[in-house]
Amino acid sequence: MSRSTRKPARQMPLQPDLGMPEQGWRQRLYIIIFESDTVAGKRFDLILLGAIVLSLLVVALDSVAVVYQRHGAVLDALEWFFTALFTLEYVARLACVRRPVRYARSFFGVIDLVSVLPTYLALVLPGAHAFLDIRILRLLRIFRILKLAAYIEEYQMLGQALAASRRKILIFLTCVLMVVILMGTMMYVIEGAANGFTSIPTSVYWAISTVTTVGFGDITPKTDLGRALASAMMLLGWGILAVPTGIISSELTARRFSTHAPTRTCPECLTEGHEPAARFCKDCGTTL
Amino acid sequence: MSRSTRKPARQMPLQPDLGMPEQGWRQRLYIIIFESDTVAGKRFDLILLGAIVLSLLVVALDSVAVVYQRHGAVLDALEWFFTALFTLEYVARLACVRRPVRYARSFFGVIDLVSVLPTYLALVLPGAHAFLDIRILRLLRIFRILKLAAYIEEYQMLGQALAASRRKILIFLTCVLMVVILMGTMMYVIEGAANGFTSIPTSVYWAISTVTTVGFGDITPKTDLGRALASAMMLLGWGILAVPTGIISSELTARRFSTHAPTRTCPECLTEGHEPAARFCKDCGTTL
Amino acid sequence: MSRSTRKPARQMPLQPDLGMPEQGWRQRLYIIIFESDTVAGKRFDLILLGAIVLSLLVVALDSVAVVYQRHGAVLDALEWFFTALFTLEYVARLACVRRPVRYARSFFGVIDLVSVLPTYLALVLPGAHAFLDIRILRLLRIFRILKLAAYIEEYQMLGQALAASRRKILIFLTCVLMVVILMGTMMYVIEGAANGFTSIPTSVYWAISTVTTVGFGDITPKTDLGRALASAMMLLGWGILAVPTGIISSELTARRFSTHAPTRTCPECLTEGHEPAARFCKDCGTTL
Amino acid sequence: MSRSTRKPARQMPLQPDLGMPEQGWRQRLYIIIFESDTVAGKRFDLILLGAIVLSLLVVALDSVAVVYQRHGAVLDALEWFFTALFTLEYVARLACVRRPVRYARSFFGVIDLVSVLPTYLALVLPGAHAFLDIRILRLLRIFRILKLAAYIEEYQMLGQALAASRRKILIFLTCVLMVVILMGTMMYVIEGAANGFTSIPTSVYWAISTVTTVGFGDITPKTDLGRALASAMMLLGWGILAVPTGIISSELTARRFSTHAPTRTCPECLTEGHEPAARFCKDCGTTL
Repeated sequence: MSRSTRKPARQMPLQPDLGMPEQGWRQRLYIIIFESDTVAGKRFDLILLGAIVLSLLVVALDSVAVVYQRHGAVLDALEWFFTALFTLEYVARLACVRRPVRYARSFFGVIDLVSVLPTYLALVLPGAHAFLDIRILRLLRIFRILKLAAYIEEYQMLGQALAASRRKILIFLTCVLMVVILMGTMMYVIEGAANGFTSIPTSVYWAISTVTTVGFGDITPKTDLGRALASAMMLLGWGILAVPTGIISSELTARRFSTHAPTRTCPECLTEGHEPAARFCKDCGTTL
Repeated sequence: MSRSTRKPARQMPLQPDLGMPEQGWRQRLYIIIFESDTVAGKRFDLILLGAIVLSLLVVALDSVAVVYQRHGAVLDALEWFFTALFTLEYVARLACVRRPVRYARSFFGVIDLVSVLPTYLALVLPGAHAFLDIRILRLLRIFRILKLAAYIEEYQMLGQALAASRRKILIFLTCVLMVVILMGTMMYVIEGAANGFTSIPTSVYWAISTVTTVGFGDITPKTDLGRALASAMMLLGWGILAVPTGIISSELTARRFSTHAPTRTCPECLTEGHEPAARFCKDCGTTL
Repeated sequence: MSRSTRKPARQMPLQPDLGMPEQGWRQRLYIIIFESDTVAGKRFDLILLGAIVLSLLVVALDSVAVVYQRHGAVLDALEWFFTALFTLEYVARLACVRRPVRYARSFFGVIDLVSVLPTYLALVLPGAHAFLDIRILRLLRIFRILKLAAYIEEYQMLGQALAASRRKILIFLTCVLMVVILMGTMMYVIEGAANGFTSIPTSVYWAISTVTTVGFGDITPKTDLGRALASAMMLLGWGILAVPTGIISSELTARRFSTHAPTRTCPECLTEGHEPAARFCKDCGTTL
Repeated sequence: MSRSTRKPARQMPLQPDLGMPEQGWRQRLYIIIFESDTVAGKRFDLILLGAIVLSLLVVALDSVAVVYQRHGAVLDALEWFFTALFTLEYVARLACVRRPVRYARSFFGVIDLVSVLPTYLALVLPGAHAFLDIRILRLLRIFRILKLAAYIEEYQMLGQALAASRRKILIFLTCVLMVVILMGTMMYVIEGAANGFTSIPTSVYWAISTVTTVGFGDITPKTDLGRALASAMMLLGWGILAVPTGIISSELTARRFSTHAPTRTCPECLTEGHEPAARFCKDCGTTL
């Protein structure tokens, strides 16, 4: 992880080296805000996590007409409280790093700005209300806290397993897409616009919802031939579903065993496969 | 299991040490009610299991308007019969343990009380009818019987595999929740209230039903962009589904192999885990 | 398999020892009808398989109103043809075994009779039309042919893996049923009859359709609390789905490795793990 | 792969030996068009891939009524551009191989022709508009490019795993089909035409959509008995789903481990497959 986060990705590094100040209140602030080894750092992370979750709740409730009509004033007040809090945090982050421009241009720097900007914009430009929902991107800030927290190992292992299966999953997706386009077009020809299959893209949307076993039911085959084809697709999708699961399963299983796999070699008799904890060669008794 | 059940969980231990009386009818009753090693104890468990299942059936049928209109009197009679039976059992449990208060405050003690109380309350307070459905918690009493029965080993193994995968599943769920909140908000912006996506919480509910491949179809995308995004979500959800399955699969597979793993022991230093092919102890160098 | 089919199951053995006649046309008929080692026996199986599939098609088409109105006469003629064929086969089976009563009372003997009886009954009793659909049980006769065919090994391996996971799956199903009953009752209380959750059984039906990710959408939550609970159920069901898959996966994986697992021991140095094809001990060079 | 593509499949080999010309512009063209080792060859593949994807987009947009009304002329122009391009490519392929007839009759030769023919036919015969959707088969041409590209190894491994599980999956599908036909017929009898189960084929279609957890919801059980049966089917389908996943998982896991399996070779008798811990050849007893 540390390696990949160091290299710049499209001019906007995820977590660039922002430079810890060497002394003074800026250093103390940096350690609290950007690190999580100290008690204060952990407390800051927890409070920030709580604030993000609560502010997301406010954004969500804002969109519920009934709630907004009744508690609009409270929600607006809370929104301004969180906006002020996040603005303060943004300024603090800018202030305590040695390279503020680099921070402002980093992925999380942009997310931090985008988290507060819409509220201010909506104040200035009445038409900017449409952008208020962008605040939901505050969600992404949770990842920064998680990355610093205790779950990194599991997170990385899952990530590595997915990355290792990347090519297999890509090929699998290509095949699925082809099946879905062919099947969708066939259903478009068989069922036609009268039965809801109004165009090839719509039919492909239906085919995807069928093969993935989602099955919304907003469009359904009405003709016998269409239903027969749909049945075949469902059974196919069911069988296909086994493939990505199998890929990830075998990847995780292999990873698990290879982690525990011994790789030490005896200097005397050159047998391999000694356990990491072994102290003597199991074949010739030489001290490892 | 025995270890974890011993330690108090939030003041309400699942199965605390209630104290078997040392002699007399209370001891005999205790052995029948709380243990399942004797013939009488097994018979008691079976009868109780049957009574619980039948009383659940009565609760369920109570709620069916047509059935209640026709057979209301029979159902009421059966309900009183089971309530009397469970009350008797509750009193007997209180009577035969040495620490009745500890039992009454334990998890199953509370469940036992909650199983009978609503029926009495509905008699006294006519408005308490609403609480009658709480009787469904009788269901939980089945777990007590199962725990004593023969399926403990499998039960524990599944539980341990889930517990061991706990952290991975938690991280996985966090990622899914983020995807679902982001996607739901996007659909709320794209489709809008006119197409059923009336608020962010509703849209997130829809996104969950889509990513998990449930696909109720009560809300469905109508615009082309919305359908394209929904298609991507379905394929994504399908791929993501592979992850928890892979986690559990590899956990169970690893567990299985580690159970059957060779366990040769060194005669000198007593370390275990030597491979079948090893000729010398890997820890002390003694010939195996 | 052979062991389990030998032992009588509820007075009705699946494939009892019917006794091959020792000579004459009855023996030749027996070998053709009941065995599949000869060319004639294989041909008989294939023709029977074809006849069963075609007769099932006739039964299915019979039920399609449009098709029956147009081609009713043809379908009736075909039905009588297959009924005559299967009657002939039934008589032939009765004639060529040494213990016809035992055959008639066996599982497949009853199925063979049930396959032809409804057609005759519908002729005699006009009211017996309702029983015509029982003919679909002809389907089960395919299993007899499959059992004799080449796919036995895979069939048995899948069966054994399922049988070995029986207890785990049972426990899993018990837990799922409890979750579903509790959740269904909660939804019944939250949503109520006005939103389609008319009774506890109906709500449990809905809960099952949700947890299994089927999601018909005939009943859907309308209240916010109900939708929140439904969302939790969908995520839960998704996670739970991983469990049976993991059980079967690990079972099949373990079976695979244990099949290929070496189990030979060197008579000289007692090392284990020699491959089945090995001719010399890999540790001391002794001839195995 | 190379082996299987060499042998003729139903008179129409997928990729027959078309014969590279020995010199001149035809050889240079052949290397560009049919191979992908050179820079020009790779560039040709990429351009062709882009043209195919874009032309598929045109076909898809053609079917959207709103888009066609507005941008019909542009789409028609683009269609003619791609048709001309693919015609040119087809002629070039014919021109540069030494055995043009063999190419024209190969699988991809036919697909190449079918990709351009409908557009010309629609010009000559106004009634041939219905065949325009056949152009979607252009999709299959992507496979030719993929086969030459870098993803062959993963593609083959997935293919081999599926091929190895072929028999197990076939048996599994047979059992599922039987369950689905029996269940569908039962629902047809229980629910009847009044509740949407109009015929046995329709009911089987419903049963498939239920067992595979698609659950369109266009047909749903209304009676209590039907809902009970549907609930059982959903739980069954859920459990069954674990089987194909388990098959593929264990297949991929086994394949993975056998790939990394030790492959030490005996210097004397050249047998392979000695374990890392072996000290003597298991076949001839030579010291390894």
